Order: sequence, then structure tokens, then C-alpha cells
Amino acid sequence: MRDFTFFNPTKIIFGKEVQKVVGEETKKHGKKVLLHYGGGHIKTSGLYDEVIDLMRKAGVDTIELGNVVPNPRLTLVREGIKLCRKEGVDFILAVGGGSVIDSAKAIAAGVLYSGDVWDFFTGTAVPDQVLPVGVILTIPAAGSETSPGSVITDWENGNKRDCDMLRPVFAILNPELTFTLPPYQTACGASDIMAHIMERYFTRVSNVDLTDRLCEATLKTVINNVHKVLNDPYDYDARANIMWAGTIAHNDLLSTGRIADWASHMIQHELSAINDVAHGAGLSVIFPAWMKYVLKSDVSRFVQFSVRVWNVEQSFDNPEKTAVEGIERMEAFFRSIGLPTRLGEIDIRESDYERIISNCKRFDGDSVGNYVKLSCGDIRRILELAQ
Amino acid sequence: MRDFTFFNPTKIIFGKEVQKVVGEETKKHGKKVLLHYGGGHIKTSGLYDEVIDLMRKAGVDTIELGNVVPNPRLTLVREGIKLCRKEGVDFILAVGGGSVIDSAKAIAAGVLYSGDVWDFFTGTAVPDQVLPVGVILTIPAAGSETSPGSVITDWENGNKRDCDMLRPVFAILNPELTFTLPPYQTACGASDIMAHIMERYFTRVSNVDLTDRLCEATLKTVINNVHKVLNDPYDYDARANIMWAGTIAHNDLLSTGRIADWASHMIQHELSAINDVAHGAGLSVIFPAWMKYVLKSDVSRFVQFSVRVWNVEQSFDNPEKTAVEGIERMEAFFRSIGLPTRLGEIDIRESDYERIISNCKRFDGDSVGNYVKLSCGDIRRILELAQ
Repeated sequence: MRDFTFFNPTKIIFGKEVQKVVGEETKKHGKKVLLHYGGGHIKTSGLYDEVIDLMRKAGVDTIELGNVVPNPRLTLVREGIKLCRKEGVDFILAVGGGSVIDSAKAIAAGVLYSGDVWDFFTGTAVPDQVLPVGVILTIPAAGSETSPGSVITDWENGNKRDCDMLRPVFAILNPELTFTLPPYQTACGASDIMAHIMERYFTRVSNVDLTDRLCEATLKTVINNVHKVLNDPYDYDARANIMWAGTIAHNDLLSTGRIADWASHMIQHELSAINDVAHGAGLSVIFPAWMKYVLKSDVSRFVQFSVRVWNVEQSFDNPEKTAVEGIERMEAFFRSIGLPTRLGEIDIRESDYERIISNCKRFDGDSVGNYVKLSCGDIRRILELAQ
Repeated sequence: MRDFTFFNPTKIIFGKEVQKVVGEETKKHGKKVLLHYGGGHIKTSGLYDEVIDLMRKAGVDTIELGNVVPNPRLTLVREGIKLCRKEGVDFILAVGGGSVIDSAKAIAAGVLYSGDVWDFFTGTAVPDQVLPVGVILTIPAAGSETSPGSVITDWENGNKRDCDMLRPVFAILNPELTFTLPPYQTACGASDIMAHIMERYFTRVSNVDLTDRLCEATLKTVINNVHKVLNDPYDYDARANIMWAGTIAHNDLLSTGRIADWASHMIQHELSAINDVAHGAGLSVIFPAWMKYVLKSDVSRFVQFSVRVWNVEQSFDNPEKTAVEGIERMEAFFRSIGLPTRLGEIDIRESDYERIISNCKRFDGDSVGNYVKLSCGDIRRILELAQ
């Protein structure tokens, strides 16, 4: 096990109707709030009106900025920063999923910074002073509600990059708010959550029994509950298990003492930067291909993954067979919940490969990933396996 | 799943040599520190000198109070409170195991309170203003390094009581510091950790898949690593897995969305109050007896426990057989690591039962526990099963 520091001070408020406390919680941290959100869903659902009303009752002055889109845009972040400076905003409330939260974090980090916020994403500056951010989560997927990370796309230049900025001060998690999430988005969320766990699970650090098992526990929970919510979108407990698993998957507990991989995420980011594919859908394509490619370098770990997560009966005389069967079950699972597993399904063509590969390399140095350090040739082979 | 709030802001600093940061971490929170510790072990090991030196280098003024004993005493807590007031202490550093940390928390809560600190334990007052507490952990067991709880014994009146007071601001966890822990204390620690998980595991709240699996993962990790450290006390990774499991077991993550039981802990506290038995040893006696007694009220949960935690092959036509086998394996496990499983082994006699039962009832109202609400008669039957 490796040395680590774990500090996750986000206050989680979880359960039915818990958004009712948003005014009082916000008041502890700020007086002038930017309400940041995405499309019209929170308006049609009534959540927008509820939040505005709760803020008013708590005596918190609120301005707003909507229109965050999936793969959130640098242009909107810059607009948000300008707005916050002009209006003297001292707290940002993100109401939505990972895109809204990531956008809110970037704004919160940019407001008090004299340079351009993209500096944080290119690594030429590090966030120092940030505004506090609070969250009402409506899509369990990105884990951004307690993670420090933010992923922003500079659409003009086709670059999607991440940066650790800040952890929200509170995260309000009401599984009821996810009842109306469409099946495809629910499935994409599950894929994203699973990917966060698997990036951490596949490690070269040995003797990490506890986090191995915690990863397996969280993965199995997601796998076992996704079909339940697809069958019955109003299954509160299944929604709740997935929502809490989504937070645990990415709050850094599962990587304590380990070195995580992140190659599949890196490659996926470049797919999204090309054609705006949903993050979870890109991951359900890339992860199986990545596994098939790296499998032989560490068969025993894939055997453990197959047996413990996918209930594969172990072929003791043929570990590779066991390992492959786990990956096949994962692919079948993704297909069963309506997700793509091939690049063609998400409109990525062979002519895109060079750009994907060169972007991966441009930002991530000589190699991508930690579990297996991938060269340009390796990434090409993975893309070919995903064809 | 039940609604919950989860807020655990203790900064965990985990790994080899991490105690080196204690001066700098302390300096962030206080200027005048009470170093609180137990017996002479930290002096013979060199840890005491190292801490004093690090505090001096960080420019932190340090006074000390040692002599904390297992089942820490109210008398020493009162002495610590007086000392802190006299010396203007603004931070307490606990170096030791759960007893030292619990004693430190009680002092930290008492210093700024005008009444007597025992008021918190009898429930006549609630801790409001507290001094910050930091921890260097030397015994993985109680989980007090990130939990809010403190358990103190009023020895004069034979009462052992707990109270939620504060979570430490930082916890320094170096598994190397546990290399010299004797086998019996190592085993008692494991039993304590397992009990913290099992108190949460046995719940009537349904559809708590995620926390069920997280509990099982943490339990299996402890079970699989205890023999490793008993065979080789210097097995760093095994010590590390147990140490981190001990924290996870009691930081409240595993009870999110659940109602925990705590009956076995309640009964055990009364055993310790009678004859100062080690907490983990009392638990390895009480828990199997409690399980045997409540088993029939919820066989399916014990089947899950047997199959998932103890790898019992399920008798599909005889669930109770499967359930009993899990409990038997747990008892055999406790014996295999040198722990008692019968009251006679810890010098509790039938003549003590009345006092145990009446103390349980005096402080815990009409019934003890949540999974099954135990009457006086139930507690007597459990004690008889532990004979």
C-alpha cells in the first residue's frame, strides 16, 4: 500500500426532500449567490422555482447563469467569471449534474484569479483562492459533487482537459430528483461511475486488499441496481444506491494507497472533444478495448475482476479464459443497458484516430495511463480493438 | 435506504514516517498543546522524543499528561481539564490508541464547559465549544481517530458511558507504529474493528446494497489480514490494511442510510465496567452469543453474512444451517487469534449478571439495541448463551 493523504470535507445531505435545506446551508457560506444550471429540465421539474424560493426565504441574494451543456464549455465559464466579478458573487450553487458542477468549479476558481481560467487546465497556474461551491445533484455520474476535479472543453480548439480545483462545501443528494432521468442518461451515468472505480481498481500497487474489496463492492452495487432503475425509474432505493455509489466512486476513498490508471478517461476525453459524445457512452466503448489490450500484462488481476465482480466461475487451469469472460460480461452488460461498445456506434471513424492519438500525447506527455503506460502505437491498437 | 447526513472532515495522513508532519499540522490549529498519552510505550519506542522534538522545531509550546489507561478514567479527564485551563492550552494532541483519543476528546469538550464533563456522558448537556484535537494513532481498533465518539469510565461508580463530542482535525496513521503491538492487543483491535462493522451490518433497513457490500468488504479485509500480522508482526501491508480498515469501520460511512444496532457494545461496556476486560475481548464473547440469540428473527441476513463474509457454502434448503455455520466460523476465528468467546474466560460470573443487566437498562431506557430490541430477559439469555 502506498502513502496517502485523504481529506474530503464535503458535507453530504442525502435523502428525500433534502433540497429543502439549500437556503440555510448556502447562508452559512455566502450572501450573494450565482445559481448555475443547465437546460430547462430544472425549470419544468419545479426544482428551479423551489430553489429560488428557498434562497429568498433564507435571505440570500441570487443571480443566475444557465445553459451549461454536456462537455461544458470554456466560453460559458469565462462568461460566468465576468458575471460573478461584476455582481460581487461570493458563493456558487450548482444545480445539475457533473457538467454544471464542473463549470461552477471553474468559475469559482477563476473569479479571484488575475489571469485566464484556462491556465489552470493547461497547468500553467494552480487554483489558489477559490469561491465556495455548493451542489444540488440531479444526475449521479461524474462524482464531481465531492471530487476536486473539473473537466472543461475548449470547443474552439477541440481540447477537453481536467484540473483539480476545489471540493464543494456541501452536496445535496436527493435520489427522487433522478426519477425522471431518461434511460440513456441513467445508463451513461452508471458507465461513468463504473469507469471511475475501474480506473482505480486496475493498479500495479500490490497488497491493497481493503480498497480492492471496496472497489468491488461499489461496482457490484452499481451493476445490480442499474437494471432495477431501468425497469422502474421510480425505484427509490435503487436510485439511492446508485447515487451514493456515484459519490463514493469518485471521492478518492477508493484510490487511497493506490496509483490509479486514467488512460481510458484520457482517450475518452479526446472522443468527446471530437464529436461531443456522452462521457459514459465513450467510456463503455473504450474501457472494454483497453482491457482486452492490457489483459495479458497482468492476467491475475483480471481473473480477480472476473470472479469477484462478474461472478465468473474460475477456470483454474486457464486464467486467461476467466479473465476474458469477465470483460465479455462487462461488454454484454453495457449493451444490455443500451450503451455502445464500438466506435462506429458513436460516429468515431478511422480518420479521427490520428487526432485522438496526438491530442492524448500532446497533453499527457510521453505516455498515457499508469497501469500500462501507453505509447501512440498502443492507443492506436486500442482504438482498433474498439472498431 | 434512510436519509442521512455524512460529514467527516478529519484529514487523514497515512503511511511510513508520516508522524514527521505532526509539528506543522499542529501549528495550523494551536499554539499551546497538551500532549496526551498512555503508559511508557511511546517513551521506550522513541515516539515521545520524536514528537517533542517535532513540536519544538515547529515552534509549538507543549505540556503533557500521560497515564491514560484502557477504559479511560473520568478522574484523569477532570485532571486534564484543570491542567488545560491553568496552562491556557488551545489544542490537544492524542498519541496512542482509542483510550488516549477518547480521553483527549473528553478533555477538549470539558475545557470550555462551565459544568462537570460527566454531564455530557449522562446526556444532561451537549458539547458545544470544544478545543481541536489531533491524533497520532498507535493502536488500530477503536476508530476514535475519525469518529466523534468518546467512551469514558466513571470507575468509582462502575459506569462506562459514551458520548459524541468531536471529530479530530487530523489523524496521523503510520502502520509501522503498530509493528510492536503484542499479539493479544492486535487481536483485540481486530475484534473491535469487526464489531464496529457488524453493529452497522445488522440492520432492519432494507435495500442498503452499497453499505452491505462495503461492510462485507471491510470485514473480509480484517479477517484476511489478522493472521498475516500475527504470523509476521512486521508485515507492513497487512498492518496498513488493518489500520485503514479500522478507521473506515467507524467513520460512519458504513452506517450511511442504515440504523445500526449497538446492543453488543452496550452489554460489553458493562462487562468492562465490572472487571476492566479489554473491549475487543468482551466483544468476542458477547457478539457470537448475541447472534445466536437474534438469529431466528432474521435468518436471511445471517445467511448473507455467512455466505458473503465467511464463505459458507449455502444450504439452500436449510437457511438456518447456513446462518449457524457463519456464526460458528466467526467464533472459531476469534479463538484462532487467541481471543475468548466465553464469559468464564474473562472472569465474568453468573453473580455479575444482575448488575450488567440493570446497568444496561438504567442508561439505555426500556430496551437495548435496534436490530432486536432487547429486554432484561433477552440480555440474561444472551449472557447465558455466552457462559
